[in-house]
Amino acid sequence: MPTIEVIEQLAKRRGLFWPSSEIYGGASGLFDYGPNGTAIKRNLENLWRKYFLSLSDNFFEVETTNIMPEKVFQASGHVSSFVDPIAKCKKCGTAHRADHIVEEFLKENFEGMTPTELTELIKKHKIRCSKCKGELEEVAVMNMMFPLEMGVGKESKSYLRPETAQGPFVDFMQNFEVLRKKLPLGLAVVGRAYRNEISPRQLLSRMREFTQAELQIFFDPSKIEEHEKWSEMAKYKLVLFPSGDKKTTEVTCDDAVKKLKMPKFYVYHLAKVQQFYLEKLSIQKERFRFRELSEEERAFYNKIHWDIELNVEALGGFKEVGGVHYRTDHDLAGHAKVSGKSQEVFVDNKKFVPHVLELSFGIDRLVMSLVDIFYAQDKDRTLLKLPALVAPFTAAIFPLVSKDGIDKKAMEIYDQLKGKFRILYDESGSIGRRYMRIDEIGVVAAITVDYDTLKDNTVTIRNRDTTKQERVKIADLEKKLIV
Amino acid sequence: MPTIEVIEQLAKRRGLFWPSSEIYGGASGLFDYGPNGTAIKRNLENLWRKYFLSLSDNFFEVETTNIMPEKVFQASGHVSSFVDPIAKCKKCGTAHRADHIVEEFLKENFEGMTPTELTELIKKHKIRCSKCKGELEEVAVMNMMFPLEMGVGKESKSYLRPETAQGPFVDFMQNFEVLRKKLPLGLAVVGRAYRNEISPRQLLSRMREFTQAELQIFFDPSKIEEHEKWSEMAKYKLVLFPSGDKKTTEVTCDDAVKKLKMPKFYVYHLAKVQQFYLEKLSIQKERFRFRELSEEERAFYNKIHWDIELNVEALGGFKEVGGVHYRTDHDLAGHAKVSGKSQEVFVDNKKFVPHVLELSFGIDRLVMSLVDIFYAQDKDRTLLKLPALVAPFTAAIFPLVSKDGIDKKAMEIYDQLKGKFRILYDESGSIGRRYMRIDEIGVVAAITVDYDTLKDNTVTIRNRDTTKQERVKIADLEKKLIV
Repeated sequence: MPTIEVIEQLAKRRGLFWPSSEIYGGASGLFDYGPNGTAIKRNLENLWRKYFLSLSDNFFEVETTNIMPEKVFQASGHVSSFVDPIAKCKKCGTAHRADHIVEEFLKENFEGMTPTELTELIKKHKIRCSKCKGELEEVAVMNMMFPLEMGVGKESKSYLRPETAQGPFVDFMQNFEVLRKKLPLGLAVVGRAYRNEISPRQLLSRMREFTQAELQIFFDPSKIEEHEKWSEMAKYKLVLFPSGDKKTTEVTCDDAVKKLKMPKFYVYHLAKVQQFYLEKLSIQKERFRFRELSEEERAFYNKIHWDIELNVEALGGFKEVGGVHYRTDHDLAGHAKVSGKSQEVFVDNKKFVPHVLELSFGIDRLVMSLVDIFYAQDKDRTLLKLPALVAPFTAAIFPLVSKDGIDKKAMEIYDQLKGKFRILYDESGSIGRRYMRIDEIGVVAAITVDYDTLKDNTVTIRNRDTTKQERVKIADLEKKLIV
Repeated sequence: MPTIEVIEQLAKRRGLFWPSSEIYGGASGLFDYGPNGTAIKRNLENLWRKYFLSLSDNFFEVETTNIMPEKVFQASGHVSSFVDPIAKCKKCGTAHRADHIVEEFLKENFEGMTPTELTELIKKHKIRCSKCKGELEEVAVMNMMFPLEMGVGKESKSYLRPETAQGPFVDFMQNFEVLRKKLPLGLAVVGRAYRNEISPRQLLSRMREFTQAELQIFFDPSKIEEHEKWSEMAKYKLVLFPSGDKKTTEVTCDDAVKKLKMPKFYVYHLAKVQQFYLEKLSIQKERFRFRELSEEERAFYNKIHWDIELNVEALGGFKEVGGVHYRTDHDLAGHAKVSGKSQEVFVDNKKFVPHVLELSFGIDRLVMSLVDIFYAQDKDRTLLKLPALVAPFTAAIFPLVSKDGIDKKAMEIYDQLKGKFRILYDESGSIGRRYMRIDEIGVVAAITVDYDTLKDNTVTIRNRDTTKQERVKIADLEKKLIV
């Protein structure tokens, strides 16, 4: 329903997000969050932490640096392989992402094609610069990482990390030691990643700086066909869009293993990821799917790779918001080789390099998807029907007027509730306008303090979705608020 | 009591922090956090948010990008003035921070000296390269920001932000609009900042990438001599170390205004900052002080500048962990000039550019300071007496043995408590060794599940500080845990 322009305007008007450094014309691919967007994002991050870290008593959050030395990315393969195809215009010099310019022309997805293949397509279809119609050069590749020089002169070449994952890999041994040498071991990072995208686009979907929440699960590869809590999920139905298929099917975890030959350890975590979206974020099943990536589409380090996709109507359909990646021992083996430090563990009487299952989530894309998914029009009212856990505020407190002690009373209630709930105080404009503002950011309840409040200690509480109002005692307010 | 080596070893052994990318020899000035350090850091950040954002109903958290375009830092003055003096060795080429090498030689603080003054001191005292004893070049300046190229080629020059502050300044107008055009308005950022330090040192004290929690309070400069909640703090005693004085004095807020001629709006926030350290973080008053910076020492944008200092014994005394900065209209006026976009507001029937009071906190320095301050030796026991709110875990659950259903029972209790508290599960090693491990990271309580638990549903709960043990019913556990 909402178009990308509607989301953009709402986001700006209501303090969700807007282009970074906008007074300087904005910075391509960079977005800042206003107070309401920040609140939604923090809630999402905390919900993610709570849910995924509680999947096992051996899953923990760690924090690693955004800047990492070049050797890390030589070992991981990013220096040689984390490249995008670019086609420069011979006339105006604009650099285009080659697969995107072909995609726009031919209306098909060309991610994963080689520069030679893309060059041929450009020649064959006479695709030209979208800016000046000039001829395009042969497709070349550009590394997407941002290089940095640390110290004085060339002391040490480094990069801003293009994914949060490498920190947990490089630090695996120290964490394994501290955490009593048990597998599976999960190391989560919620933090920034940076990619020098050639053509950032679609608001928060493709940015140059973004937030990932990633959980790296280190496990014994000989146990990939089992999971200790398998029976809990065996009958759970996954929403799958397998590579090659043209449609979504619902498949039980058991059948995914038996018929699709997927490993249990992988399937168990797919199911847990799906539950997060459907049960914790209350996303309708119809708007969710896992899409299997073909060998050409997969990232260079993945053996099994299903994207997490949500149907984001403003972006025209299903879009990637995360992925479940079986990275094998690609990273640990790479680091062992380049650093010369063994990454072998000794568990269950044998020595081996653990394999990694990565659960990866783009937090900004998720924020934008939620705005799209929960956007609703109710007569002349615009509202975000965000789940209470994610809504920027649990409740707003409105003094009917800012005089006669009503504002003072309202502030008392604010002070009483703010330690336990996320509370917004607003006394400006008519009550109607104040309702309008909080509906548009998804605040769950509105509490109005009026002249009667001074007499009988009751307030009006209004529900965002139904607009129904109820008179309740101040003392009962805490029970009425949904968190 | 603890030396820097003791902290370093404890931090590594117990998963607090260690050098980033250590398998590659570490990266100078970069540190990663292990699971226990990350937990402490997150708790600190959340405590900070809760405390400072609740100082006013018009204080909010925002999130702005780490990468910002060059113009931002031209306007803020960082391109021209955010420089450090360096002295290069003529023989081995090592670059030294000039003021530090002079300080090490003369045992005095020379921050804020000009390159010419430092060059003279180096010549006068014949100070030489600390590495190879070679002669030093004349002192030059180096900008401390990390430059980046965005897009293809020279599309746009940018920098990693050297402080979180500029985001809220550049976005001030949008946030002011969204937040109903009221002053004072507070915009907080908890996020990364980056400085290309020439000589990073003292573990988390001087890093190239670090976390700041900063609150920018925009206010009407004509109201700097008032604060609506002044009476609450008027008698509160500040611990001050004024510039020029050689000792700390306790001064009421009233006296700071009357005798020291400090503005009320500034003093009120000093008091609130002090309360955070003394009451929320339980730091002894003797280890806390505000130190006034002289004109030479102050950052180029500050009119009033008191550092927040803690006595960190491992670092040899009082060290800066934050600051309270009256930045005037330096930043907004600079952005108005360079962007051409007015930063004037219309409040109380007049037009003006708001002034800014900045409350700035280094989160990593604080983590390290807390380890130092709460480090204790009790007979042969090492423990961190961290306040419960900051401790990495509220409680640890220990099954006496991993058999006979005791581990299963312990896991049940873990599952029951983990949604409400921060709980660690550990079944490896003797109970004594498990106590040792959690004492060293400051876990407040240990819950041991044994054979009696299976019979009567009671467990032993042990207090970290007293080591006293108590037998309690599982059903009463939640009441016994301190958060």
